[in-house]
Amino acid sequence: MSTGSENEVRLMKGNEALAEAALRAGMQAYFGYPITPQSEVLEYLALHSPEHPGTVVLQAESELAAINMVFGAAGAGARVMISSSGPGISLMQEGLSYMACAQLPALIVNVQRGGPGLGTIQPSQGDYHQAVRGGGHGDYRLIVLAPASVQEMVDHVFLGFELSERYRTPSMILADGALGQMMEKVRLPPRGTLPHGTPAWATTGKPAGRTKNIIRSVFIQPEKMEEQNLILQEKYGRILDSEPRCERLRTEDAEIVLVAFGLAARICQKAMDLAREKGIRVGLLRPVTLYPFPTEAVACAAETAKTFLTVELNAGQMVEDVRLAVDGHRPVEFTGRMGGMVPSPDEVLAKIEEMAARLRPRAVV
Amino acid sequence: MSTGSENEVRLMKGNEALAEAALRAGMQAYFGYPITPQSEVLEYLALHSPEHPGTVVLQAESELAAINMVFGAAGAGARVMISSSGPGISLMQEGLSYMACAQLPALIVNVQRGGPGLGTIQPSQGDYHQAVRGGGHGDYRLIVLAPASVQEMVDHVFLGFELSERYRTPSMILADGALGQMMEKVRLPPRGTLPHGTPAWATTGKPAGRTKNIIRSVFIQPEKMEEQNLILQEKYGRILDSEPRCERLRTEDAEIVLVAFGLAARICQKAMDLAREKGIRVGLLRPVTLYPFPTEAVACAAETAKTFLTVELNAGQMVEDVRLAVDGHRPVEFTGRMGGMVPSPDEVLAKIEEMAARLRPRAVV
Amino acid sequence: MSTGSENEVRLMKGNEALAEAALRAGMQAYFGYPITPQSEVLEYLALHSPEHPGTVVLQAESELAAINMVFGAAGAGARVMISSSGPGISLMQEGLSYMACAQLPALIVNVQRGGPGLGTIQPSQGDYHQAVRGGGHGDYRLIVLAPASVQEMVDHVFLGFELSERYRTPSMILADGALGQMMEKVRLPPRGTLPHGTPAWATTGKPAGRTKNIIRSVFIQPEKMEEQNLILQEKYGRILDSEPRCERLRTEDAEIVLVAFGLAARICQKAMDLAREKGIRVGLLRPVTLYPFPTEAVACAAETAKTFLTVELNAGQMVEDVRLAVDGHRPVEFTGRMGGMVPSPDEVLAKIEEMAARLRPRAVV
Amino acid sequence: MSTGSENEVRLMKGNEALAEAALRAGMQAYFGYPITPQSEVLEYLALHSPEHPGTVVLQAESELAAINMVFGAAGAGARVMISSSGPGISLMQEGLSYMACAQLPALIVNVQRGGPGLGTIQPSQGDYHQAVRGGGHGDYRLIVLAPASVQEMVDHVFLGFELSERYRTPSMILADGALGQMMEKVRLPPRGTLPHGTPAWATTGKPAGRTKNIIRSVFIQPEKMEEQNLILQEKYGRILDSEPRCERLRTEDAEIVLVAFGLAARICQKAMDLAREKGIRVGLLRPVTLYPFPTEAVACAAETAKTFLTVELNAGQMVEDVRLAVDGHRPVEFTGRMGGMVPSPDEVLAKIEEMAARLRPRAVV
Repeated sequence: MSTGSENEVRLMKGNEALAEAALRAGMQAYFGYPITPQSEVLEYLALHSPEHPGTVVLQAESELAAINMVFGAAGAGARVMISSSGPGISLMQEGLSYMACAQLPALIVNVQRGGPGLGTIQPSQGDYHQAVRGGGHGDYRLIVLAPASVQEMVDHVFLGFELSERYRTPSMILADGALGQMMEKVRLPPRGTLPHGTPAWATTGKPAGRTKNIIRSVFIQPEKMEEQNLILQEKYGRILDSEPRCERLRTEDAEIVLVAFGLAARICQKAMDLAREKGIRVGLLRPVTLYPFPTEAVACAAETAKTFLTVELNAGQMVEDVRLAVDGHRPVEFTGRMGGMVPSPDEVLAKIEEMAARLRPRAVV
Repeated sequence: MSTGSENEVRLMKGNEALAEAALRAGMQAYFGYPITPQSEVLEYLALHSPEHPGTVVLQAESELAAINMVFGAAGAGARVMISSSGPGISLMQEGLSYMACAQLPALIVNVQRGGPGLGTIQPSQGDYHQAVRGGGHGDYRLIVLAPASVQEMVDHVFLGFELSERYRTPSMILADGALGQMMEKVRLPPRGTLPHGTPAWATTGKPAGRTKNIIRSVFIQPEKMEEQNLILQEKYGRILDSEPRCERLRTEDAEIVLVAFGLAARICQKAMDLAREKGIRVGLLRPVTLYPFPTEAVACAAETAKTFLTVELNAGQMVEDVRLAVDGHRPVEFTGRMGGMVPSPDEVLAKIEEMAARLRPRAVV
Repeated sequence: MSTGSENEVRLMKGNEALAEAALRAGMQAYFGYPITPQSEVLEYLALHSPEHPGTVVLQAESELAAINMVFGAAGAGARVMISSSGPGISLMQEGLSYMACAQLPALIVNVQRGGPGLGTIQPSQGDYHQAVRGGGHGDYRLIVLAPASVQEMVDHVFLGFELSERYRTPSMILADGALGQMMEKVRLPPRGTLPHGTPAWATTGKPAGRTKNIIRSVFIQPEKMEEQNLILQEKYGRILDSEPRCERLRTEDAEIVLVAFGLAARICQKAMDLAREKGIRVGLLRPVTLYPFPTEAVACAAETAKTFLTVELNAGQMVEDVRLAVDGHRPVEFTGRMGGMVPSPDEVLAKIEEMAARLRPRAVV
Repeated sequence: MSTGSENEVRLMKGNEALAEAALRAGMQAYFGYPITPQSEVLEYLALHSPEHPGTVVLQAESELAAINMVFGAAGAGARVMISSSGPGISLMQEGLSYMACAQLPALIVNVQRGGPGLGTIQPSQGDYHQAVRGGGHGDYRLIVLAPASVQEMVDHVFLGFELSERYRTPSMILADGALGQMMEKVRLPPRGTLPHGTPAWATTGKPAGRTKNIIRSVFIQPEKMEEQNLILQEKYGRILDSEPRCERLRTEDAEIVLVAFGLAARICQKAMDLAREKGIRVGLLRPVTLYPFPTEAVACAAETAKTFLTVELNAGQMVEDVRLAVDGHRPVEFTGRMGGMVPSPDEVLAKIEEMAARLRPRAVV
């Protein structure tokens, strides 16, 4: 029997599960602007937020307006979320740089579609560089989570808010159009499991007993600006130390280690199974956090694996982080599709077989 | 005697030299919005463009408006430029992704200031990642040039227009506030040395004899979107093959190779001289193109050098490209300052001496 | 003893009283953008709306964004308010025309300042024409209320919402900077006295049992557009018949009738008292609704009065409506100050004395 | 034989004739944004402005951006034009108030369509109030011209620029969709007949010999703001004295005087002819300037005519100015159609016959 204090199980689309999770995670404000393939997030919230009095859900005039409203709400201490897809996320780059500098928590959701440009509406992972290296100006980072199931669309909302608030920095869920549309069974935590009080630093009006809280991203004197950067870098250092997350499947005895995140990881898992059936020892390392990247885990795998294959729905972006982690000790190859096209497990298998053949050249007879 | 067909020599500020170069390079339209430390570009153009009838110089409503006007002008076949600094460039990320996808040439100028956020107005190199990996969404690249002198502020305007038009892709000059304000003697080419006709693909009104020209970044069918991506990737491949540029100073016998661009390279050159005076064999490899990165040249240097030091005015961004080029064959260290602060040659020298000491540990006595 | 069901008496500034009244009147959403002399409205609502859960108070990106959010909220059936001053109200003219055409209720507050242009921040009545004849395009009208006390700043919020919703058309409170800043004692009705359910026409999601609700201001076929105009004109006819309101002070025996609204009426009342002390029979007719203008009341007064003096804080705008009402039967004069300047009662008295002298020329001796 | 110094005769659409006239009148800059039924203006200028080097023609990001560019260009002394239809003109109201206050000349073209709201694209005269009483905030006026033929679409461009510059105030051409689309033969003056130098007050960069030119609409001190208003009102007084223009047809012996402008006047002229054929003495008074309204001419006509009929393509707007001019001496009736509908001459004739019958009741037999 389901009660208010237990998880609820439902069959849901990824976008809707994410929206429902946000309501259950105590989100206080959402600002957004519609764009395929994530408009269901706004629609679901518009429909269901009245069940959670005090939750503001607003379709802003533009993505630019929306991200600046997020800045304002976050500065006032609210738990706040925004979602969009590639073009909309690009319009938010100034705002994200401002928020990172001002140390404001918020959850940014990018349900990726094929780009560049206005592009297409099919799934993609083409915004990896933008997400993990900062598409905005200056030295800053987002915490980037890469869900690979509808359940993780839910879990990463909770994790994203939690990490964002613990480190006072924006976090991003980097999903894609397929995860957004896919239906799977999900366990939804009850409301109230992620406590949230008004943070001490929030600009909520100065009472007599304390000094003024100031939220800002401008530091006219370069010495002060450098100090702020040192604060940020020290924080990013702690994040790199403590927060990398990944999933490893059969990597212990693997000669070939696939590295893939999100939707690509689902395809790779199937390809791995097919390869194992053919006697090829393949493992899968799936980064769950893209920033901090699980460098240590990849480096460890490089001690036993003979070679790496990175699979992405783009022209090869995360592969640079894999190569930086492997640091020349093993070859790192790449395969991928672009512009909304998704490789089949068989396409990945063919690439695996070709790599396996090179590892064990056929004896000359 | 100076005539219309010879170079003219003047003492100029970097921003003004860049603006004058744009007029002489036959720029037909400029759109921008003021931001320190590059407002002189717009001011100079507003004052002097009337000397070049038919040149449109317009302060738009916002950076967002400006980049979309650039899209329009470029689509109509005009030679067009835009300039800004960090926050303004971040606002252009959607537009840049659209232009890259639509294969439109234009020259983007980023006179970097300290970030992230609204930041400060002192020089910085904090926008490296944004520039070279694409701050916008999707798989695209900008050609990125890194001037290190006022003369290169001029030369890179010509080079930037030329490469941009040859490859039909936006190019960027990644300068900084110090280069923009610095006065040096420059040779200015006469007007007319960089010919420009209306390109065949431009949307200038369809005459009877040809099919319609269409400029677009939307490809609803993912198969078409992938085709467009393959066209782009093939082009980036050609750029990577043919266009990397760098300057090498005393790298032949260097044990320690400094890698630095722009303002940091000027500081490193001085530090190199100081180190050489102390008998430390230091060389300098200065990337002139940041994309395409001079990977081959760095890899070559790794064959003879013992170690690398990357110096940047940021928290360490280009150092990843140096490490990817060195690919684990040699250690790659980093030093830098942030937020508008600039390291002195002595600071860099101290780091060099520390590295040299590690290379040649003092004999135990 | 004050209970929840009785009026509360407080000493308040006009802007704050208006804001508190909005909360008590059950306003569900407020969108605005700061501008002197009415920023206290937004500030008061931001501070106190959390006491009324479910009330959205949002500072939008611009006045343009704000009015379009008002359109959206009103279309969804919410009781919604927006406030600004001259320049901001001008930016809303497109939106107001759209709302009038789409028959959407909302309360618009203009706390007037001296214009035209960016102007000054002192009180003015220079936006009369804009308010009563429609500053936007096409044949439409706003219901316009002109408070003359802090108490009316409260009462007109209730009246404004009520009329707006009864006639499904935007209503405006045309106040001024002095009323906004002035402190007076006010009686505040308890919350809940102005019931509001979701209107049947609101776009709240179509249930099975009814046809789709459509809110729109576009009618491509001119026949349909004319039909919509006839619906609007019929409504304005009913408003003209039923809703004109004015206050008459000592008009019964008056030779000279002053006509003035808002702040100017307060000054005129004092001038009237001074004139009466001097034996000049002066009355005051104060329009409370500017649209519908109390034409009938002015026409009646013209049957007994000898002459009219319109006093406004502008160059003479309402005077046209007085002349249209008097229709040539009596002379109608005008006096006023502009640009934030306010005439003193003595200035008005001097004008009255000059007019009285002309009515009763001194006997030749 | 046509030479460069003679008028050229062409068959042209109203919108194109207006655009060609602007080029011949020496317009230096045009900013706009497309909207039916006047997009041909922008299109014609985009196509033909390259024949006039130095003429800037720019499609801005929005009407808001466009009007602020007009402000800038006018402040710099350029002869500048902008065109739109109802919704776009409403978006410009803040800008127009700023320009009027700052005393900047420019030519605003409103090719009216049916409103209010997004409305329809058929011709209308529903923006009369907005045009003549100032849709923006504060006491200001536009000079408003009402063409009634394609030839006047040309002539009013020259007249509009001339009056605007003589009085340093924005002028407006209030046309409509029918005039914009209608083709008629026009005489086009040669280029160069309307001289234009840079005005002494323009902000073109301060040379040593004079004080700084400042263009502004902000006057913080109300005394200064009132002074500026007095300057404006004195100017409007001169305009009211010197610039009213109208056309009178057969008004000398007319019992019934029709008052109509623009397209409605063309219909009325036909109705007048039909009525004259039936022996009804009808005349037509066509205001050519709507502000200044030809009050004197209407008042004169009221001395001989028995009654007035105002015909407009709206719900009755100019009729108020006719009534103010007639001042109760004669009855003033109104007939019109709305929302893009246009009355036929027969409809007007029917109304005339009904009025004539009332003037001369049939003898009882």
